[in-house]
Amino acid sequence: MSHLFGGIEAGGTKFVCVIGTDPDNILFEKRFPTTSPDETIQATIDFFNETKNEFGIEITSIGLGCFGPVDLNINSKKYGHITTTPKPGWGDTDIVSPIKNALKLPVIFDTDVNAAAIGEGKWGAGVNLENFVYFTIGTGIGAGAIINHQPVHGLIHPEMGHILLVKNPLDNYKGKCPYHANCFEGFASGPAIEERWGKPADSIHLSHPAWDMEADYIAQALCNIICTISPQKIILGGGVMQQFHLFQKIRQKTKDYLNGYIPAKIILENIDEYIVPPKLGNQAGMLGAIAMAQTIMKV
Amino acid sequence: MSHLFGGIEAGGTKFVCVIGTDPDNILFEKRFPTTSPDETIQATIDFFNETKNEFGIEITSIGLGCFGPVDLNINSKKYGHITTTPKPGWGDTDIVSPIKNALKLPVIFDTDVNAAAIGEGKWGAGVNLENFVYFTIGTGIGAGAIINHQPVHGLIHPEMGHILLVKNPLDNYKGKCPYHANCFEGFASGPAIEERWGKPADSIHLSHPAWDMEADYIAQALCNIICTISPQKIILGGGVMQQFHLFQKIRQKTKDYLNGYIPAKIILENIDEYIVPPKLGNQAGMLGAIAMAQTIMKV
Repeated sequence: MSHLFGGIEAGGTKFVCVIGTDPDNILFEKRFPTTSPDETIQATIDFFNETKNEFGIEITSIGLGCFGPVDLNINSKKYGHITTTPKPGWGDTDIVSPIKNALKLPVIFDTDVNAAAIGEGKWGAGVNLENFVYFTIGTGIGAGAIINHQPVHGLIHPEMGHILLVKNPLDNYKGKCPYHANCFEGFASGPAIEERWGKPADSIHLSHPAWDMEADYIAQALCNIICTISPQKIILGGGVMQQFHLFQKIRQKTKDYLNGYIPAKIILENIDEYIVPPKLGNQAGMLGAIAMAQTIMKV
Repeated sequence: MSHLFGGIEAGGTKFVCVIGTDPDNILFEKRFPTTSPDETIQATIDFFNETKNEFGIEITSIGLGCFGPVDLNINSKKYGHITTTPKPGWGDTDIVSPIKNALKLPVIFDTDVNAAAIGEGKWGAGVNLENFVYFTIGTGIGAGAIINHQPVHGLIHPEMGHILLVKNPLDNYKGKCPYHANCFEGFASGPAIEERWGKPADSIHLSHPAWDMEADYIAQALCNIICTISPQKIILGGGVMQQFHLFQKIRQKTKDYLNGYIPAKIILENIDEYIVPPKLGNQAGMLGAIAMAQTIMKV
């Protein structure tokens, strides 16, 4: 009998818990809102206990992709904690230990965006790539990076939503980030678009100047990411990127900013295959969590 | 008898060829100016042939850290070539094959800045770190990155000197980069400092506003690098960083730009140990080439 794995996509708005092996074999899936840590973590534990007790499902391990910032350093006392999040009640919350202790299973822990990148790397747009980046551009902006075939952690983990950008000359908006006057998330997240233009992104017409400005900020960020880590592909997901017309604008402006400097054919001649939407859509995170759980088999 | 290794630091201004095993055991070293490709590559070959014929020195392999852009993709027809460099005569030059064929030795090839990062990682400021970045800020600006314990290649290789920055409000200079109106190298390289202020960097007084502006550009870049790849340390080398007074300014401004967002003790409380000069000084590149040559022993 083949192994089954658990996946948890722990988001700031909702949690998704799944059991399965791959995109074509998800046996159970449950979604519930992110409320208090105690209640939400208990609902997570209950999902796995119920599938075990009621359906006899045994899983090998659990992958957990979590909103952050989180502590990924296994030598740290705070390993497995959500650290300095502004989300009320969730600062300094240990999320790994309660799940691991209640279910007596190994838990493989990473950021929500690294989980999505891992999912796209295993079954989506990043298959077989050594270096690529997965961005989510929505309520917040974050990115997971796979470099040398592994997710990037480093000192903390990437926080690409907070790189600094040049303010667009037509932009009078002060930015939404409480930390940075001119960062990517502050200029280009969904809430920034809504506050700047006085209406939600999904009600702004295709011909509105909002989209040229949005594409400008995203292209500046991609130009910097390309020069910094030389990804073989960039995957753009999240709510704002449901505006698919943005892709062509972003691709053109990214080429304009790079101005021919990076001598790569895929950028110069074939950028439609370089800056792409996720292949797993909004399932990248939960499937990535399953893929993370499966890494235990290599140990 | 222990193995000996060759190292080549192939710079745009000069080549350095060495034979040895580590910083305390360099048996031969030769420096010569970078002239035409034929002449310079021949001088490199001659160095290794002469040490062999005159002193009986047998080496196991050669590490080659090269100015670029270079093609690092071993599946590419242009692997081992310097590609689109503006340096006259050097565009599309195969540097690996002539050396490998003449000396009948394995050649391990990477960028000059990755070689320096590898050297610092083996014997210098990056020992035991999983993720760190080595910058050279001088005639040009480039960086080597070690992520997940390996140098980053990806699509091409990092070109961090060309990330886009916000123009300092006191800066009236148009920038030195022919590709980008507002990139790091265009604003902050040695030649940019000289052209902006009308005198070479090393003749500008400590109290001159040039240094606050320089530190501002470097700090913006470091802020973006920190948010993008979460390095555990940043090493700043190169001619401009011989102005050691810059370090304190850069550290303070980097903290100001991050504004407490990255919850890492080494940044918040101990940034003197986070943004540091190279421990190997100007030997990082040649020693890194030796370290690269030694990787052949693991195969």
